[in-house]
Amino acid sequence: MVTKMVDLRSDTVTKPTEAMRAAMANAEVDDDVLGHDPSALRLETELAKITGKEAGLFVPSGTMSNLISVLVHCNIRGSEVILGDNSHIHIYENGGISTIGGVHPRTVKNNEDGTMDIDLIEAAIRDPRGEIVYPTTRLICLENSQANCGGRCLSVEYTDKVGELAKKHGLKLHIDGARIFNASIALGVPVSRLVQDADSVSVCLSKGLGAPVGSVIVGSKSFIAKARILRKTLGGGMRQVGILCAAALVAVQENVSKLEDDHKNAKMLAEGLNQIKGLRLNVAAVETNIIYFDVVEGTKITAEKLCKNLEQHGILVMQESPISIRVVLHHQISASDVQYTLSCFKQALTGMREDTGI
Amino acid sequence: MVTKMVDLRSDTVTKPTEAMRAAMANAEVDDDVLGHDPSALRLETELAKITGKEAGLFVPSGTMSNLISVLVHCNIRGSEVILGDNSHIHIYENGGISTIGGVHPRTVKNNEDGTMDIDLIEAAIRDPRGEIVYPTTRLICLENSQANCGGRCLSVEYTDKVGELAKKHGLKLHIDGARIFNASIALGVPVSRLVQDADSVSVCLSKGLGAPVGSVIVGSKSFIAKARILRKTLGGGMRQVGILCAAALVAVQENVSKLEDDHKNAKMLAEGLNQIKGLRLNVAAVETNIIYFDVVEGTKITAEKLCKNLEQHGILVMQESPISIRVVLHHQISASDVQYTLSCFKQALTGMREDTGI
Amino acid sequence: MVTKMVDLRSDTVTKPTEAMRAAMANAEVDDDVLGHDPSALRLETELAKITGKEAGLFVPSGTMSNLISVLVHCNIRGSEVILGDNSHIHIYENGGISTIGGVHPRTVKNNEDGTMDIDLIEAAIRDPRGEIVYPTTRLICLENSQANCGGRCLSVEYTDKVGELAKKHGLKLHIDGARIFNASIALGVPVSRLVQDADSVSVCLSKGLGAPVGSVIVGSKSFIAKARILRKTLGGGMRQVGILCAAALVAVQENVSKLEDDHKNAKMLAEGLNQIKGLRLNVAAVETNIIYFDVVEGTKITAEKLCKNLEQHGILVMQESPISIRVVLHHQISASDVQYTLSCFKQALTGMREDTGI
Amino acid sequence: MVTKMVDLRSDTVTKPTEAMRAAMANAEVDDDVLGHDPSALRLETELAKITGKEAGLFVPSGTMSNLISVLVHCNIRGSEVILGDNSHIHIYENGGISTIGGVHPRTVKNNEDGTMDIDLIEAAIRDPRGEIVYPTTRLICLENSQANCGGRCLSVEYTDKVGELAKKHGLKLHIDGARIFNASIALGVPVSRLVQDADSVSVCLSKGLGAPVGSVIVGSKSFIAKARILRKTLGGGMRQVGILCAAALVAVQENVSKLEDDHKNAKMLAEGLNQIKGLRLNVAAVETNIIYFDVVEGTKITAEKLCKNLEQHGILVMQESPISIRVVLHHQISASDVQYTLSCFKQALTGMREDTGI
Repeated sequence: MVTKMVDLRSDTVTKPTEAMRAAMANAEVDDDVLGHDPSALRLETELAKITGKEAGLFVPSGTMSNLISVLVHCNIRGSEVILGDNSHIHIYENGGISTIGGVHPRTVKNNEDGTMDIDLIEAAIRDPRGEIVYPTTRLICLENSQANCGGRCLSVEYTDKVGELAKKHGLKLHIDGARIFNASIALGVPVSRLVQDADSVSVCLSKGLGAPVGSVIVGSKSFIAKARILRKTLGGGMRQVGILCAAALVAVQENVSKLEDDHKNAKMLAEGLNQIKGLRLNVAAVETNIIYFDVVEGTKITAEKLCKNLEQHGILVMQESPISIRVVLHHQISASDVQYTLSCFKQALTGMREDTGI
Repeated sequence: MVTKMVDLRSDTVTKPTEAMRAAMANAEVDDDVLGHDPSALRLETELAKITGKEAGLFVPSGTMSNLISVLVHCNIRGSEVILGDNSHIHIYENGGISTIGGVHPRTVKNNEDGTMDIDLIEAAIRDPRGEIVYPTTRLICLENSQANCGGRCLSVEYTDKVGELAKKHGLKLHIDGARIFNASIALGVPVSRLVQDADSVSVCLSKGLGAPVGSVIVGSKSFIAKARILRKTLGGGMRQVGILCAAALVAVQENVSKLEDDHKNAKMLAEGLNQIKGLRLNVAAVETNIIYFDVVEGTKITAEKLCKNLEQHGILVMQESPISIRVVLHHQISASDVQYTLSCFKQALTGMREDTGI
Repeated sequence: MVTKMVDLRSDTVTKPTEAMRAAMANAEVDDDVLGHDPSALRLETELAKITGKEAGLFVPSGTMSNLISVLVHCNIRGSEVILGDNSHIHIYENGGISTIGGVHPRTVKNNEDGTMDIDLIEAAIRDPRGEIVYPTTRLICLENSQANCGGRCLSVEYTDKVGELAKKHGLKLHIDGARIFNASIALGVPVSRLVQDADSVSVCLSKGLGAPVGSVIVGSKSFIAKARILRKTLGGGMRQVGILCAAALVAVQENVSKLEDDHKNAKMLAEGLNQIKGLRLNVAAVETNIIYFDVVEGTKITAEKLCKNLEQHGILVMQESPISIRVVLHHQISASDVQYTLSCFKQALTGMREDTGI
Repeated sequence: MVTKMVDLRSDTVTKPTEAMRAAMANAEVDDDVLGHDPSALRLETELAKITGKEAGLFVPSGTMSNLISVLVHCNIRGSEVILGDNSHIHIYENGGISTIGGVHPRTVKNNEDGTMDIDLIEAAIRDPRGEIVYPTTRLICLENSQANCGGRCLSVEYTDKVGELAKKHGLKLHIDGARIFNASIALGVPVSRLVQDADSVSVCLSKGLGAPVGSVIVGSKSFIAKARILRKTLGGGMRQVGILCAAALVAVQENVSKLEDDHKNAKMLAEGLNQIKGLRLNVAAVETNIIYFDVVEGTKITAEKLCKNLEQHGILVMQESPISIRVVLHHQISASDVQYTLSCFKQALTGMREDTGI
């Protein structure tokens, strides 16, 4: 019988805190479709301030925040967006920018650290003036921190260079900031500085920050006005949404500082995993709260079997490929949970080795 | 100074009750994207039961519930949907089924009572077998009660006939049941019977039922499985969404029976308005909680001016056209609010007549 | 055995004349995708001149000319077009503007004479400024002459009014001029005057004018530049297309004047058909080369049966509904063909009556 | 003054031969939209036979043949196609599969020889069963020969492996055979064998084969039936299209065998260019009629300047990048044209070196 559960599948699995529940129970609300819900307005204003943008818009999910952002920037038929071949938008959002939005994605290889080479981005930019066979590049997307590249962060210097490139070619820059607070903490740079050149940023509140639901898109007033219409089109306009926004505001106020602990715990977990025979990972690459590691026991102990075995110990992780596993830290995983997790990993691998006679 | 506000713009303006707030504060939740949130599952199961369908899916809005339903039924490129020219989907949802979904709408005239003539529907059905210039009709949409036709209800007999027609031609039937509970109460027919032939129904919880946010789509298990993927694509997948679902479940449990009062209050208000000089409406057409009336004072007293004047009395209503106004009753408008509203109307019109010297 | 065929299904069935064939055999051509084919340029320039517009673009079909025109005017996601509920674009072009282009159609009732009431058009115009539930109206489409309304013509006065309305609301005006030369001849008004206020016109060359293939879109230079890119996207860019353009230029030069004969023949045929027992039509409504008539023999002699019977006499017509038939005149149908056709109709109906004992 | 023009920009620039012009002048034609044009049917049947497929469909361009093929295979919303990152569909067709068709492209790196690694293709395949964040892979596209990879050919063995992979995962396989006859000649393998596992093939007639206009899509009868409807939607249905098909049939009959000369001439030209100081290319990579080479004179003599200089000698080539140029052979370029071209290149480079004092 499992006595303790440690859910490391994602930082989206957190439960609302007491403070969030109290905030929701007492939230001042109004119809956010007919007018503006006061709690929504408060949250949107706060995020706009933190990111240094004019305005914000609460949406039900990170997927919608990215979808709206890309579609508003690419609102003319025949648009192309340049984005990482390993980016969340390209891989994990159902291809919605194409299948729903008709935007053509042009991918550039994501390096291990999440960057795309600047010259490859520039080479991918296309302008159909004088050419009739090209879509028109209108947008570059970055992601910071970059989930699928091990939660690694894009530096201010790199982001500035991409911003410069975008300006030079008259393109917009969107930053998928699902975990921009993690990047900010890890880099020691304010969020507003990290997204200085971005025309839009999507900030997720239900990942590391632990809010139950929602993301906020920020950008200029005119951008947000268009985003508001598209949110309605997609069905993301919600009535007394202040309930959710009140909880999200608590998340922003209380949990940003806790991300530092998540990063420390991630480092500790990574170091521990790296010392376990049969697992392999690059500890130096763990910059935030996400760890990817490989199972290198040959063909007997697979990632799939290890995941199942861990589940019996109450440890939930995410299998990413036949040999690769992802774990994500969050504010409801303590340092002692990390130690417990490491002991379960050792036990699981030892047990599996005995079973398979390795 | 306004001492009392009576908000009759829509039944979406209600505030969550104490019971709903308590339910949200105590809701059992989990990640509804990675797995299934228990409160969401409870609500979806309850709505499936009420509507007599296999499964349900919570979505952030009525717009998304209709968008997903139409797009799942019309998931093949080149699809056409037949719907009322005055239906909510056609008029008030940004044309999303076309602009986002690429579905071609073919409208049939809505009669005053909200019905479309059966033979006109049949004449509009198109099958491109042997023809290469037609899209393929795949879906018929009904709306019950029909907002833009004065909240009038479609009878079981009528709905059955459309269901039969759909089956005969191999088409799907979707019912926009944003206010299906109002129709059920007004007709004295269980919801499950009203939607018996429907392949999908969208049921709104944040209108007359007073939940803060959300709609539930119901249909077969395989339909809901497709709807779940499309919800993710659109960005409607929410994490600890049980917060909202817990409130919605309270709404379903506590407020369905109150709709009858809304209808009585609507009737009372309609009769009162009809006796006021300068206003005109068809009292017999008020079947549920929605009233449309015209301002017939000639050119001096317009709907716009009347709305503004009423606002100064704390009465909020919705202008629909230069001569037409809509008011909607809901569970936070009492019989005495109706009386107060009527007195404000009289006062406003009297005052305006004096100002303009009529 | 059929000795003579009279094909009245459409004016698209004409065969190229000797002059057209010679023109094609000798056409000066070049790669119209890499540069500009000289014969294409000549044709496009000629049509621009005739219609009084800056530039033209040859496309493979009338459907593509309308599709490109609507999509260029509605190139921003969330656009709505206002068009006749009986217009060719809405009924016979696969719903392509939605299913391929994501444009939302808002139909206005076509009156018997092909017009839409000006006030109904104006009421349908929507501007989402301050509203978030509406698509944005960007275009009004007219069709002249209007195929599905019996080939009736829109007068200069009517078209001017619609043009004025479009300007007042900042909308574009597209005229589907598949048979604009027929309208011009019938009304005695130059094409350029008829389309004076239009931002784009599609002119078909393979209908009454008898060219084997193609239409030309005309409009401003900047409009045509966008249209050229979209033509490539859709796959309508053709290499040595001058072959087709050379034939089309002959069609324009030689056949415009023959349309008057088609109209006379249509009138003669209509009058003849109207005198045949069992057929009914409004002779006054026959303004150009298209005739619609009903079969009114009760249930025994249906349109379907009559069409089949006529086919045995070598007369090809188009069944439009269970009781309605369409015939179309063109330059390869002579006055004596009309007389022959009438005699076949009489024979067919007489024979059918005898068979059924009527 | 230029006395001789040698147009090496593309194999699309050929002029119709006398035999083609005669065929067009005498073509038997009919309305291919209302029924079936006999010359179109003849051409379609011939291509179906050559490729070993059930049926064919003539379309105005290679772009439309690919667009239709991808869209028919991916006719369900939410589809993803796997294709080469350097493929014509991805780079040179305006992103139409996304911007018009809503299909999400997932690219795999094209190796220098035009292949994509089989294991990379397999890793890119996605099936959303049990997953809600992925689009559904429905199609793999190959291109043979591969224009943007120097006209290199995919072997039967390679194509078979991809075909096997597609079958294993229930995917369709489309081959962009714009130059499939070049591949067939170069590999010494019949076209039908090269496309044996393909569910659809687009074959271009206006490239090396020299027809003025058009491509033919081939596939199963049911595939072609759907393609026919989509062709109409896109506006590719043409009336008396037999004119073009008659010329194309001559192209197929007379010019396939001439491709071998084009390949020989390409080899000769490549070898000659390679011996010119300042140019660099891989002669072994020239497998068909396309040559890419680099200008390696440092910064003084750029590809752009060389192209302009050559133009003054009457030699037209295509600049591909700041340092890269493409030339394409075709049946209207003779061996002596190649020698003349080489002499012009030498002259141009010598002249430019003198001007710049290199």
